[in-house]
Amino acid sequence: MQNYRLIISCPDQTGIVAKISGLIAKYDGWIMEADQHSDLENNWFFMRYEIKIDSIKKHLQAFTDELEILAHTLQIQWQLVDPTIPKKVLLLASRTPHCLMEILHRVQAGDLFCKIEAVISNHANLQTHVEQYQIPFHLLAKRPDPNMLAELFSNYQPDVIVLARYMQLIPEDLCYQYAGKIINIHHSFLPSFAGSDPYQKAFDRGVKLIGASCHYVTPDLDAGPIISQDVIAISHRDSKNDLIRDGGDIEKSVLAKGLRYHLEDRVLIHGNKTIVFI
Amino acid sequence: MQNYRLIISCPDQTGIVAKISGLIAKYDGWIMEADQHSDLENNWFFMRYEIKIDSIKKHLQAFTDELEILAHTLQIQWQLVDPTIPKKVLLLASRTPHCLMEILHRVQAGDLFCKIEAVISNHANLQTHVEQYQIPFHLLAKRPDPNMLAELFSNYQPDVIVLARYMQLIPEDLCYQYAGKIINIHHSFLPSFAGSDPYQKAFDRGVKLIGASCHYVTPDLDAGPIISQDVIAISHRDSKNDLIRDGGDIEKSVLAKGLRYHLEDRVLIHGNKTIVFI
Amino acid sequence: MQNYRLIISCPDQTGIVAKISGLIAKYDGWIMEADQHSDLENNWFFMRYEIKIDSIKKHLQAFTDELEILAHTLQIQWQLVDPTIPKKVLLLASRTPHCLMEILHRVQAGDLFCKIEAVISNHANLQTHVEQYQIPFHLLAKRPDPNMLAELFSNYQPDVIVLARYMQLIPEDLCYQYAGKIINIHHSFLPSFAGSDPYQKAFDRGVKLIGASCHYVTPDLDAGPIISQDVIAISHRDSKNDLIRDGGDIEKSVLAKGLRYHLEDRVLIHGNKTIVFI
Amino acid sequence: MQNYRLIISCPDQTGIVAKISGLIAKYDGWIMEADQHSDLENNWFFMRYEIKIDSIKKHLQAFTDELEILAHTLQIQWQLVDPTIPKKVLLLASRTPHCLMEILHRVQAGDLFCKIEAVISNHANLQTHVEQYQIPFHLLAKRPDPNMLAELFSNYQPDVIVLARYMQLIPEDLCYQYAGKIINIHHSFLPSFAGSDPYQKAFDRGVKLIGASCHYVTPDLDAGPIISQDVIAISHRDSKNDLIRDGGDIEKSVLAKGLRYHLEDRVLIHGNKTIVFI
Repeated sequence: MQNYRLIISCPDQTGIVAKISGLIAKYDGWIMEADQHSDLENNWFFMRYEIKIDSIKKHLQAFTDELEILAHTLQIQWQLVDPTIPKKVLLLASRTPHCLMEILHRVQAGDLFCKIEAVISNHANLQTHVEQYQIPFHLLAKRPDPNMLAELFSNYQPDVIVLARYMQLIPEDLCYQYAGKIINIHHSFLPSFAGSDPYQKAFDRGVKLIGASCHYVTPDLDAGPIISQDVIAISHRDSKNDLIRDGGDIEKSVLAKGLRYHLEDRVLIHGNKTIVFI
Repeated sequence: MQNYRLIISCPDQTGIVAKISGLIAKYDGWIMEADQHSDLENNWFFMRYEIKIDSIKKHLQAFTDELEILAHTLQIQWQLVDPTIPKKVLLLASRTPHCLMEILHRVQAGDLFCKIEAVISNHANLQTHVEQYQIPFHLLAKRPDPNMLAELFSNYQPDVIVLARYMQLIPEDLCYQYAGKIINIHHSFLPSFAGSDPYQKAFDRGVKLIGASCHYVTPDLDAGPIISQDVIAISHRDSKNDLIRDGGDIEKSVLAKGLRYHLEDRVLIHGNKTIVFI
Repeated sequence: MQNYRLIISCPDQTGIVAKISGLIAKYDGWIMEADQHSDLENNWFFMRYEIKIDSIKKHLQAFTDELEILAHTLQIQWQLVDPTIPKKVLLLASRTPHCLMEILHRVQAGDLFCKIEAVISNHANLQTHVEQYQIPFHLLAKRPDPNMLAELFSNYQPDVIVLARYMQLIPEDLCYQYAGKIINIHHSFLPSFAGSDPYQKAFDRGVKLIGASCHYVTPDLDAGPIISQDVIAISHRDSKNDLIRDGGDIEKSVLAKGLRYHLEDRVLIHGNKTIVFI
Repeated sequence: MQNYRLIISCPDQTGIVAKISGLIAKYDGWIMEADQHSDLENNWFFMRYEIKIDSIKKHLQAFTDELEILAHTLQIQWQLVDPTIPKKVLLLASRTPHCLMEILHRVQAGDLFCKIEAVISNHANLQTHVEQYQIPFHLLAKRPDPNMLAELFSNYQPDVIVLARYMQLIPEDLCYQYAGKIINIHHSFLPSFAGSDPYQKAFDRGVKLIGASCHYVTPDLDAGPIISQDVIAISHRDSKNDLIRDGGDIEKSVLAKGLRYHLEDRVLIHGNKTIVFI
């Protein structure tokens, strides 16, 4: 049994829930899950409904037509997502395999529902791994040509682009063009240790926890809206290599979680922050 | 700015959200927070709304009258809670002070909104501590007379009874009479180590984590619906006294959290489980 | 740079550290890491030293000869482990792949240092996965013949046997014969929910955390010495399938951690408990 | 039963453990707990022994005399601490009570072994709280006169100075004079959000975890050696006030833990990092 996902955001005001849920009820829609959030600072309203597909499918056109009219009146931005259609995903990686492989495993295991269109890398070493999964592998130069990247993005028309430890900057124009669609895993607890070699920085600073952060990519390096973060305890006994090994596990789980939230349309971006309905 | 809390549970069906939110909208109510849950196994629906007091206060009687009619049709159980009225709390304790004191501190610090009516104990040692807070202290026998307890409960008419490391059984009839109103903190990760001396049991078993569980009291010892649980790591280095010391911190935070959820009407009991809207 | 591991246990008494470290110093051994534990209840002493290989290698025979004499006097049980020799591991699994695959990945990635001799399963479905790693796969009957299992164990002479979600009992005599060498991952926070289908039990009980436990196998089901445990938070929203999915991640990390501790000779068994030097 | 604590640090080399433990054995000392760490980068050795008081007390003078000679040869810095003598503690606070009160409670409950000499504050509001504990309270100006502070420090000759949410800078010369003796709790996960109003910064950045850090004070603001850190998960639902409330719990537990480690002589400072033997 699956549910459509209705994602709503609009200026906050009295009666929104009544109007939306009234419309759903009018077409016999059955709301199975509901989340909402009122941002009091910005007076903005966010909502995510799951509506049983069986209950509303036959009236879908009429429902969305009327929703569009309502949206016009209430300045609503909305999206109705059919969960049976897998989102198209492009994976970008560099030399380090663990995050890339984690996603490939989880997609294969049915843990993440999406279609991996291709893997793009600026290093050749992951090619054989990727091709075992019958997924196209595109090798770029070590410092990728921005036009090549833009062309690949354009050819695949991905719904999501995942930087699975891809160690190059995404050109600013692509950040804007694919705003809210590019997800990065950064191997630190942001905003600590943004930029390169965060495990070295963590080691040098002598922190007692290390972490990872999954966030949307914006032109500002490692400064986009955060979806998910986690940490683990470390001690003076841990070498930098220990941090890399244990941190790698956190990177994998934080990325998998962040990506799953995104694929399930649980993440709404608002300014430089996220609402994550879980 | 504060919100009424509307708590709903009923058999699940199409259109509930629309009907409830439509009624709220009819009386200009502004829904600030919304949570719902559909129990698919039992086909039961649970909802918690926060409605801005200012928006609906003047129509409150009309709204609740009409809600009552709707409730009759849809077999809804509902409750509308005014958050400005503090819940009346009875605290029960034995010799160990930390959980009792934690609640007294937090209430005084404004962290928990409620009115502590009295402390009841089967030991005298906490009396001076309690009276510093100008709270009545009732000393019972070491093995309390059930009638005395029933009478105190009856006199105070508490909304909530908190067993803050009270080491005696609550008589079965009081469990039934105050069902869903008695909260216990048990010093283990339930269902592990129910009953007496859980730290000794944990020490003997050689577990690597210890925990605490906040749950509603039922006639079955330590087997009622769980509200909140947490754990911390321990090692072979920890003596039983270390477990008691570090476990005590977890007991305090788990009890404080569970009680806060209850005081904010975030916990709905369903069979032997809880829905906790956080 | 690598270190020998010297593991010691004996009745506790004055001067043990001096005698052992004096002996190491006599042969120019350089102690790089040291852990010790005094069990006050049982008056027993446990120690793990890491000694720089380069520092003592040329005197190794003389050192161990003299250590043996000392051991005789002090009733010391000792073991000197060369970390450059990979331990031989047998993996047992049933239908569920995630724990098995996790170990295969980590061994391949260099994260766990050991040699996987073979995989033994009572189901055929994991065979192709395993053979991609060029590892022998032995298919047993769904209810394995104890003699077959004993024979396989005997043929491979494993240092460690890992039950990676192997859903069958190990015959009692094999538990005794390979005592301290069989590691199981149980998909609950032990002692809660021992035995079959712990996620169903956790779901039914309404716990707010689920966990996994890595432990040595003894004839008592899920009751052997615990090496490692961890938990994650769940809520009323989580279906049993969600518990299985999220719990699976914890199983993998807890098993990997427990196995790594064992492979690095960090775990000492004492009665039904473990000392884990980390 | 209590143990002397012997703290050692020196250039790393073969035979240190043998020499120290040999000396302890010579005077019948019984080593109950032992921790050591070799900093491979800086070739430095750190050790903490617990020696049963009863075993060595009568030879203490002879032992320390000989240790001093050994120390001269091996360039050892050492300290032998009698755990029965409470360390003298000065507490500094501003308006916020929770960290200060936490320490006062824990000292009173016997959870932290030390003697609180006095509380110094630049605000009057905590005075009555403090005086309930029969502890001297010194009120400074809102912007304290550095000489006053220096004089109070000098009068009390504290072993430890705890900044329990004291919101003023410690003058640079006092940082140097009391190096390794001033402990601060900072209400963020350092190095994120150093300086003022970290909860506002965390709220604005949209992080998904908030934390607290206990560290030694150096002239660089919030940049000294870290002893202990912890975090908790937050979500888009949490207001800044929620962060302050829930973060406060983490501050208390992180400070209590860091201070306990310090009082038990478990923390060794090395450059800008700490070794914490736990």
